Amino acid sequence: MDKGKVLLSVSGFNPQRWHELLAAGREVVTKPDGPGDPSIAYAVVWKQPPSILAGLPNLKAIFSIGAGVDHILADPTVPDVPIVRVVADNLARHMTEYVVWRVLDHHRFGPSYQAQQKRKIWRELPQRTASDVSVGVMGLGSLGRDAARALLSLGFRVNGWSRSERRVEGVTTFAGDAGLRPFLNATDILVVLLPLTEATRGIVDYGLLKELRKRNGLGGAVLINAGRGRLQKDDDILRALDDGTLKEASLDVFEVEPLPKTSPLWTHPRVFVTPHAAATSDPDHLVAPMLAQMEAHDRGEPLRDLVDRQAGY
Amino acid sequence: MDKGKVLLSVSGFNPQRWHELLAAGREVVTKPDGPGDPSIAYAVVWKQPPSILAGLPNLKAIFSIGAGVDHILADPTVPDVPIVRVVADNLARHMTEYVVWRVLDHHRFGPSYQAQQKRKIWRELPQRTASDVSVGVMGLGSLGRDAARALLSLGFRVNGWSRSERRVEGVTTFAGDAGLRPFLNATDILVVLLPLTEATRGIVDYGLLKELRKRNGLGGAVLINAGRGRLQKDDDILRALDDGTLKEASLDVFEVEPLPKTSPLWTHPRVFVTPHAAATSDPDHLVAPMLAQMEAHDRGEPLRDLVDRQAGY
Repeated sequence: MDKGKVLLSVSGFNPQRWHELLAAGREVVTKPDGPGDPSIAYAVVWKQPPSILAGLPNLKAIFSIGAGVDHILADPTVPDVPIVRVVADNLARHMTEYVVWRVLDHHRFGPSYQAQQKRKIWRELPQRTASDVSVGVMGLGSLGRDAARALLSLGFRVNGWSRSERRVEGVTTFAGDAGLRPFLNATDILVVLLPLTEATRGIVDYGLLKELRKRNGLGGAVLINAGRGRLQKDDDILRALDDGTLKEASLDVFEVEPLPKTSPLWTHPRVFVTPHAAATSDPDHLVAPMLAQMEAHDRGEPLRDLVDRQAGY
Repeated sequence: MDKGKVLLSVSGFNPQRWHELLAAGREVVTKPDGPGDPSIAYAVVWKQPPSILAGLPNLKAIFSIGAGVDHILADPTVPDVPIVRVVADNLARHMTEYVVWRVLDHHRFGPSYQAQQKRKIWRELPQRTASDVSVGVMGLGSLGRDAARALLSLGFRVNGWSRSERRVEGVTTFAGDAGLRPFLNATDILVVLLPLTEATRGIVDYGLLKELRKRNGLGGAVLINAGRGRLQKDDDILRALDDGTLKEASLDVFEVEPLPKTSPLWTHPRVFVTPHAAATSDPDHLVAPMLAQMEAHDRGEPLRDLVDRQAGY
């Protein structure tokens, strides 16, 4: 029996491993064979070129490789078929790794030790104990809660902030507009994991950064944004770094992505830049369940992990 | 009532915070007021200059700031009074932070992303999932076990090796000479936390590194040594880095410390150097219990956390 083909269409990274693994289950193409190609049954995409999915008559479902699906919903030519998201579990583990990694790098003076190494300086820096350092997590969804738990187990004090009230064991939580300033005033290292909505757009601005705790034994406040780029104002972060409001920042996301070559963030000595790679999707864990979902769907079984198009996520 | 003074004598770091905090409880001096100074009751030391403790008639106990006490025992002029070690608990937490930090930095391609940032390259690297990566911990004492637990909770597979058999929940353990090769063959990232003994001196040599798993999705094997410098052969590590046996290394300890300016390890692009700072002692957590021990001892109560001079630790 002939299985429908998979259209694999991504930008921003090399999809070679995805291709190999998908090809073990179905024929894979990277573009339709002309408009209205009837041979394509499923699409696996990440920031696909506009209109590439338009008018595929036999497309049954779209699988998003990354967490966000705004790149799919933003294209009005995308057929109205079910959209399946990557498994959130795997994503949270990757995000937690990123958050713990960056928190520890700032807490343990990674940038300072690297600067010393360049000058062959052998000097121990006075090290704070994690229980004296407060990490503030903005956004207490599944990613924020998973990261908070990992930070707690390493001994950090953890504060959490969300728009509406949330309880997380071991975390001192704050909520809403009224809770924002007290949350920031008690935070040494700010971790941003908010969703991007009208209420959160541009929330990480100079005024917010100014409220972070600076006399904290770290030599200043630290910002880590692994949420969405448009939560932050790049220029405000630079201003805060340059006037001492911020000591250091780790940024995985930016107002414009890819980060333009002209951005001073690329070369700022106290900024660590990653290319929106905090929570990556590992094909070795994700392709097999994708292929299994395609098989099941072909047999008439329902798809899991569906996106709610109305809600937008 | 006049309390005996504290002699604070350290090298390798700035003891200002120790001085401040100790001075809140007792008068602090940084050297005796001439030979046989009768005013000194306690010494707080780390790699103190030779003979500085010699002939102090009223010295009642010595407190070591760091984990090791070899610097105290190696000086034959040190009076035969009780030696108190820092609290091991605090030490294990600091060591675990260092291990998790360095493992994540290699696992998450920290050095590669930094190299990309320098060249303003926006490119996501294919990220493995922690459960596909095996971290091998050499040495399953209290430090090794604490680090192993933290790595397990982040999802890594953890192997452990020790001279004599040990069981640690969730860890695949190997023991003795017979277990060494199978342990190494199953390890992507090697973490060395062994004590330095006749049996372990120089154990981290080229032959050992050659046995690590290299085809592992990380682009090569990784070495992290936070144990003792003389466990390793610096030249063998350089050889392994240069011929591709090792991809990267994080080294907190070295055959000779401070690491000589002439060592190529300082400038090797794939080596991260810290100045024997993995498990630091935080005065804000340690001085109060020290002062309390001195008070208690003055009242005739026994000291805790004593070093066994016969065993040497």
